Amino acid sequence: MRHLDYEPLLAVDAPPARPRDEVPRGKYDFAIAYPDPGSLPLSGLAESLEQALAEEGARLALYPDVQGYEPLRQFVAARLQHERGMSVDAEDVILGDGSSQHISQVIGMLIDPGDVVFAEDYFYSGTLSTLKMNGADVRGVECDESGMVPSALDEALARAGSEGRRTKLIYTIPTFQNPQGWTMSLERRRQVLDVSRAHGVPILEDDCYVDLRYDGENIPSIHSLDPSGQVMYVGSFSKTIAPGVRMGYFVGPPEIAGRMRMIRKTGGSGVNEFAALAVDRYARRFMDEHVREINSIQRGRRDSMLAALGENFGGSAGWSSPDGGLYIWLRMPDGTDIASLREEALGAGVGFQPGPMFAPDGISGRNCARLCFGYNTPEEIHEGIGRLARVFAEGGCLPE
Amino acid sequence: MRHLDYEPLLAVDAPPARPRDEVPRGKYDFAIAYPDPGSLPLSGLAESLEQALAEEGARLALYPDVQGYEPLRQFVAARLQHERGMSVDAEDVILGDGSSQHISQVIGMLIDPGDVVFAEDYFYSGTLSTLKMNGADVRGVECDESGMVPSALDEALARAGSEGRRTKLIYTIPTFQNPQGWTMSLERRRQVLDVSRAHGVPILEDDCYVDLRYDGENIPSIHSLDPSGQVMYVGSFSKTIAPGVRMGYFVGPPEIAGRMRMIRKTGGSGVNEFAALAVDRYARRFMDEHVREINSIQRGRRDSMLAALGENFGGSAGWSSPDGGLYIWLRMPDGTDIASLREEALGAGVGFQPGPMFAPDGISGRNCARLCFGYNTPEEIHEGIGRLARVFAEGGCLPE
Repeated sequence: MRHLDYEPLLAVDAPPARPRDEVPRGKYDFAIAYPDPGSLPLSGLAESLEQALAEEGARLALYPDVQGYEPLRQFVAARLQHERGMSVDAEDVILGDGSSQHISQVIGMLIDPGDVVFAEDYFYSGTLSTLKMNGADVRGVECDESGMVPSALDEALARAGSEGRRTKLIYTIPTFQNPQGWTMSLERRRQVLDVSRAHGVPILEDDCYVDLRYDGENIPSIHSLDPSGQVMYVGSFSKTIAPGVRMGYFVGPPEIAGRMRMIRKTGGSGVNEFAALAVDRYARRFMDEHVREINSIQRGRRDSMLAALGENFGGSAGWSSPDGGLYIWLRMPDGTDIASLREEALGAGVGFQPGPMFAPDGISGRNCARLCFGYNTPEEIHEGIGRLARVFAEGGCLPE
Repeated sequence: MRHLDYEPLLAVDAPPARPRDEVPRGKYDFAIAYPDPGSLPLSGLAESLEQALAEEGARLALYPDVQGYEPLRQFVAARLQHERGMSVDAEDVILGDGSSQHISQVIGMLIDPGDVVFAEDYFYSGTLSTLKMNGADVRGVECDESGMVPSALDEALARAGSEGRRTKLIYTIPTFQNPQGWTMSLERRRQVLDVSRAHGVPILEDDCYVDLRYDGENIPSIHSLDPSGQVMYVGSFSKTIAPGVRMGYFVGPPEIAGRMRMIRKTGGSGVNEFAALAVDRYARRFMDEHVREINSIQRGRRDSMLAALGENFGGSAGWSSPDGGLYIWLRMPDGTDIASLREEALGAGVGFQPGPMFAPDGISGRNCARLCFGYNTPEEIHEGIGRLARVFAEGGCLPE
C-alpha cells in the first residue's frame, strides 16, 4: 500500500524534520555541560519524593496548576528575592520543563520571520537554534570581559532601526556566560538596561548558572534593576539538582505570563507535578548545602582546567577565567582553525564544541572552543587538555 | 517609570493571554476526569523511583534522549504490540509530557489558519481549544453508538473539497470516547480508515482511555489496521498511573516523528527523565495489577452512576452506557437548556461540563452534559446525581 505523503499536509511554518542522530562522546567530555554524575543528590531526591507523596500525593490525581506546583513557586520566589534582589512573589513565577522551554515560548510569542534579535557575539547554541527556527535575524553584539559592550549594543539597535527592521528582543546570559565564561558587571547591567529602554526592546535574562559561583561577589540580576517590565527572567534547577528533573522557572510581565498560561493550557504540557514535588522538598531541605558541595567540586575542576591550559597552551592561546558556571572559552590565534579538528579530538577521546556553534552567523569563531569542566575528574581534565593540545599541535594550530 | 508595552512586539500568531482563573469544583465533581485519588499508586511510585535511581540515577546528569527514556519506550512498544495489535518498536515511540502535548504538536505541524479538521460531533475540549487556537475550521461528524458514521464523514470530506478547502486531519477518540462514552466498532474503524484513505487525510487516533475497560472485548487500534502511515497514534499513562506524572507517547510516520524530534530539541522540553524512570519501573512491575484494581473500582462507580441516572432521570433523558473510560454522556430532551444551570448545580455542590464545551460550534448541545464518575465514591455519586436531578427539575429541565 502506498505510504501517505505528509508533505502537502504540512503547515507553512512546520519545522524541518530532525534525523535520529547520536552525538559521539569523548571520554574526556568537555563538549557537554553535565554536572558530575557522582555528585547527583539521588538519595535526597528519592527521600524527598517519598516524603512529598506521603504528605500530598493525592495531588497527582489532578492536572497541575497551569503555573506549576504552588509551594515550589513560593520557594523560587523567596530565593529570587533573597539571592537575586528581585521583587517577585509566587504568583509571578511560572514553572516549566527546564528554562529552555520558557525561552522557546518567549521566542515563539515575539518573533515573526525577519525580526531582529540581539545576543552576545557567541552564545548558547540551543537558544540560537530556536531563534533561527523561528526565522529571527540573529545579530551578535561585541563583548569584552564585562559582558556586552553597551555602545556596541546601542549602535547595533540604531542600525537595525535605520534599516527599517523590527527588533524584538535582547537575549543575554549575564552570569557565567555560556560559552564565554565572563560575568556582566553591575555597571554594565545598568547600562545595557538603559540602552534597551531607550530602544523599547525587552531583555530576556537567562540566569541558569547563577548558583554555581566559585569566587567573587554575587551580582544582582538585571531583572532586579528594573521596575518597568523591561526584563524577562528565566532560571533552572537543571544545574543545581539535575537536568533530568526538567524544572525551570520564568518571571516576566503580565502580557507574556498570560500567554504562557495559554500555551501551557492548550499545549497540553502541564508542569510535571511528580518532579515538582520532589524538587520542592529536596530544595527546601538540602539545596544550599548541596550547592556548596557541588561548587566545591566544580571549583576544583575549573582550577584543574585552568592549570592544564596554562601548562599546555600558555603563551599560544587565550582563555576565560570564570568565577563560576561550567565553561571556559578557549581562543586560539586568529586564523587558526580548530573547528576542523573536532573529529581528530574525538578520535583522541576528547570532546569540545567549536566556536561556530555559538556564532549567530554560524561561521565565526573557528579559532575558538567551549570547554566544559563539569563532568570529568581533575586528573581526567589534565589528561584530556594534554591530549587536546597534542591534537591541535598535530593539526598545525599550536606550536609543538 | 512607564511599563514597556509588549503588544507591538508580539508575533502575528501569538496566542491570546489567559487570565489566572480558578475553576470552582463541586464536592460531587462530575466535571473533571480525575482518577480516584485514593487509588493512586503512591508507594509503588516512590519505591520504583528509588529503585531506578539506585540502578541508573546517573542518567539524570544527562539531557534526556530526544525521544525519551529508551527502556520505557521499549515497554510502551511491547504493550502496544500486545494490547493494541500494532507493529511498532521502541524507535517508533516518542515520549512526551502527556498525550495532549503530542496532539498539540501534531496540530501545530499540520494546521494553517482556515484548514479544515474533522472530529466527532462532540469531542475532548482540550483538543478543540488547541485546534481553534491554531485557526482550524473544526467540523463535527455525526456519531452513533458505534462511533463516527462513515458515510457522514465521507460526505463532509467531499463537501470541504468542493468548497476548495484543504482538510488536514481527522481526529478521533475511538475507545470510550470523551465525552460520549461509546466505542467505535472494529467494522467502523475499517470503514473510517477507508474513507480517510480515499480522501488522503490522516487520522490522529487518541487512545488515552483504552486501558480502562470494564466490560466487553478489546478492539484493535485503528493504527493496527493500517500499514501505510495513514494513522498517528497517541496514548498516555495519565489515566492508568496518574495525570501528575505527565507521561504520554506518540507513534506516527517518519515525517511527523522527525519534526517532533526537532520541536523537542529546539523547544527545550526534553521528556522528564525523573518521571520516566519511575513510570518505567512502576509499569513493568505493577501496571497490569494496578489497572485491574482501578478498573474494578471504576466499574463500580460507573454502575453507580448508571443506576442513579436510572432512578433520577429514567424516562426523561438518555445517556450512554460505556464499556470503559471515565465518562457518561447525558442527553436531556431537545430544547432543554441544562448548560445554563451550571452555576446552580455548583451551588448544590455538583460539577458537570455542559455540551457546548465539546461542540465544534461552541453552541450545540445545551441539552447535553458530560458526567465523570472517576472521582467520587459510589455513595457520593448517588447523592450527586440526585442533587443534579433536583437542580434540573427546579430549572424546568426535568419533570418534578
